[in-house]
Amino acid sequence: MLNIKKPTLLLNSDICRKNIHAMASKAHDCKVMFRPHFKTHQSAAIGEWFRNEGVTAITVSSVSMAQYFAHHGWNDITVAFPANQLEILEINQLASEINLNLLLESEDVADFLTRNLISDSGFFIKIDTGYHRTGIDASNVLLIDRILDATKSSKLHFKGFLTHSGQAYHAKDRQELIRIQQDAAENLLMLKKQYQYVYPGLIISAGDTPTCSQLPISAGIDEIRPGNFVFFDVMQFALGSCSLEEIAVALICPVVAVHPDRMEAVIYGGAVHLSKDQTLLLPDPNPVYGLAVNWDGKNWDTRNILGTVSSLSQEHGIISLTHSGSNLKPGDLVAILPVHSCLTANLMREFYELNGKIIETINS
Amino acid sequence: MLNIKKPTLLLNSDICRKNIHAMASKAHDCKVMFRPHFKTHQSAAIGEWFRNEGVTAITVSSVSMAQYFAHHGWNDITVAFPANQLEILEINQLASEINLNLLLESEDVADFLTRNLISDSGFFIKIDTGYHRTGIDASNVLLIDRILDATKSSKLHFKGFLTHSGQAYHAKDRQELIRIQQDAAENLLMLKKQYQYVYPGLIISAGDTPTCSQLPISAGIDEIRPGNFVFFDVMQFALGSCSLEEIAVALICPVVAVHPDRMEAVIYGGAVHLSKDQTLLLPDPNPVYGLAVNWDGKNWDTRNILGTVSSLSQEHGIISLTHSGSNLKPGDLVAILPVHSCLTANLMREFYELNGKIIETINS
Repeated sequence: MLNIKKPTLLLNSDICRKNIHAMASKAHDCKVMFRPHFKTHQSAAIGEWFRNEGVTAITVSSVSMAQYFAHHGWNDITVAFPANQLEILEINQLASEINLNLLLESEDVADFLTRNLISDSGFFIKIDTGYHRTGIDASNVLLIDRILDATKSSKLHFKGFLTHSGQAYHAKDRQELIRIQQDAAENLLMLKKQYQYVYPGLIISAGDTPTCSQLPISAGIDEIRPGNFVFFDVMQFALGSCSLEEIAVALICPVVAVHPDRMEAVIYGGAVHLSKDQTLLLPDPNPVYGLAVNWDGKNWDTRNILGTVSSLSQEHGIISLTHSGSNLKPGDLVAILPVHSCLTANLMREFYELNGKIIETINS
Repeated sequence: MLNIKKPTLLLNSDICRKNIHAMASKAHDCKVMFRPHFKTHQSAAIGEWFRNEGVTAITVSSVSMAQYFAHHGWNDITVAFPANQLEILEINQLASEINLNLLLESEDVADFLTRNLISDSGFFIKIDTGYHRTGIDASNVLLIDRILDATKSSKLHFKGFLTHSGQAYHAKDRQELIRIQQDAAENLLMLKKQYQYVYPGLIISAGDTPTCSQLPISAGIDEIRPGNFVFFDVMQFALGSCSLEEIAVALICPVVAVHPDRMEAVIYGGAVHLSKDQTLLLPDPNPVYGLAVNWDGKNWDTRNILGTVSSLSQEHGIISLTHSGSNLKPGDLVAILPVHSCLTANLMREFYELNGKIIETINS
């Protein structure tokens, strides 16, 4: 058993394994390749739970993460981030060791890699299907052709088209989410149709946690890459991607002060533990930074909501208490379900299973 | 020289030392005790630069930070955070080694410490002078008396009253900032007047970076505890606490994609590097997550603003480019002045001087 004295991130491994199993089964049933994004947990130990579900290929968002997981026996990795040419040494090293896939979206970088890559690597062309973070518009076949031309006689091998519909996080309702998913699929399918005669075997890759959790997989998609579902969080709950019971991580925090006059408690647990990401839990018009639930020393209980984290500074968190939370006093512990589990896990660096076993990560 | 390939936090030690010297001189000139908050840098190496300015007493925001700095030779430390009774073992250990000051604001915790503290420790009573994060209202002498009574025959020794006017970060103009500072000083002076006959030598402690940087120190204040000024950041610039030239840290980030059609560049540098804290740079109505300036390989140049960081995901940052930034291309490096240097420094864990020398921190 853990003796918790300060903010400590706990993982309910049963919930986590269930989340993994559910998504792996869905991919299997839909006959799409499942290449989960490992940026949420960044943990070789949790990676093994995916391997137990038959997962052999993964997604990461940095070369450093690719190095970490390659070191832990993963040999088919897509770095779903525009290729950073300044890391060419590390990319060459990885490409010589594993099946590496990079992301391209400019002729400049395609040229650079054509000249500097010395081991074989796959690449996807990043397509912007409406998120407008980065990527090439699906209609810009001129640029797509230029990239394909530039890489023709190089160590770069075209694998297909990839998108991330980050706008799914801003969908107002299920109808909009469906439209976002359909738009992405239509764009990618159109490109596949256009290029598959010259590049037989090219695949199309899509899939974020909101669409993969809430909707059937789009027909024609070859590969999905959701990540956050491994833990879920309050943002995904607010989006309708999960129930509170499916959230696999909680930050256990000491209560250090209470202010009954304004129904608030102060916890040791702030922006350096939870991150400053926020979400809305309608109909409450104020953003929240986490959801406080009961912690009995062994488990957290999502049926017993003690309040919402209404503000954060570096080490302090303020909980706006519900009636259930009104008995909290200094020295108590509460469980905070994080708004964005990826950022909380990254900040906390390592977490513990409920039985006290430490789970090491890339940041440990 | 550093070979920067991925997001790297650099410290201009000349600027940092000047910031330290300026605040130490101001405190000296105003004859107030300077007990800087070390939560921003969390670095023993930077602590030495304070020592060179005659600083002997410091503030931290957690018991863990107190342990770290005690280990590095600091023997007069105030933990400016409501005492966390779950860390009683660590508190007792620290109290036996150094001059430790705790923060009390409830009778419960006062009782607990009276029963469980086995080495002498000072304590301040935390007064809420309008921030409403935590602390006791200055008019609540009933509760103040109860805490003083509860601790009377204990190892706890009353040092005085302490406040943090966090609302200074929301002051709309200089007049409001002055009013916030005056309110805090008046409240603390009133309490000092009331209690100094029974507790001769009690002090009053105040002072955040906005008021300490922008205003003269209030008459009658005995001690100031600003912290952020050591690095400053874009939030402090927006508040008028510093010029851009006084910001001592920048995150150097690779450009990985450009989108000239919407005047945006994508950098490798996201929420896991900068934090999701944001500020307004009026008249721009959109919040920013950082300010991109030129990096020539040796220094950043705040006269050459390339854009604002307009959004962040885990590893991606989007820069809304100015005309000066329109020539950026993948493979370039840019310097991002962070919105909140405390959170950025905490996330990055260690930083480098411009000459490449590593600066280790508690998180290294």
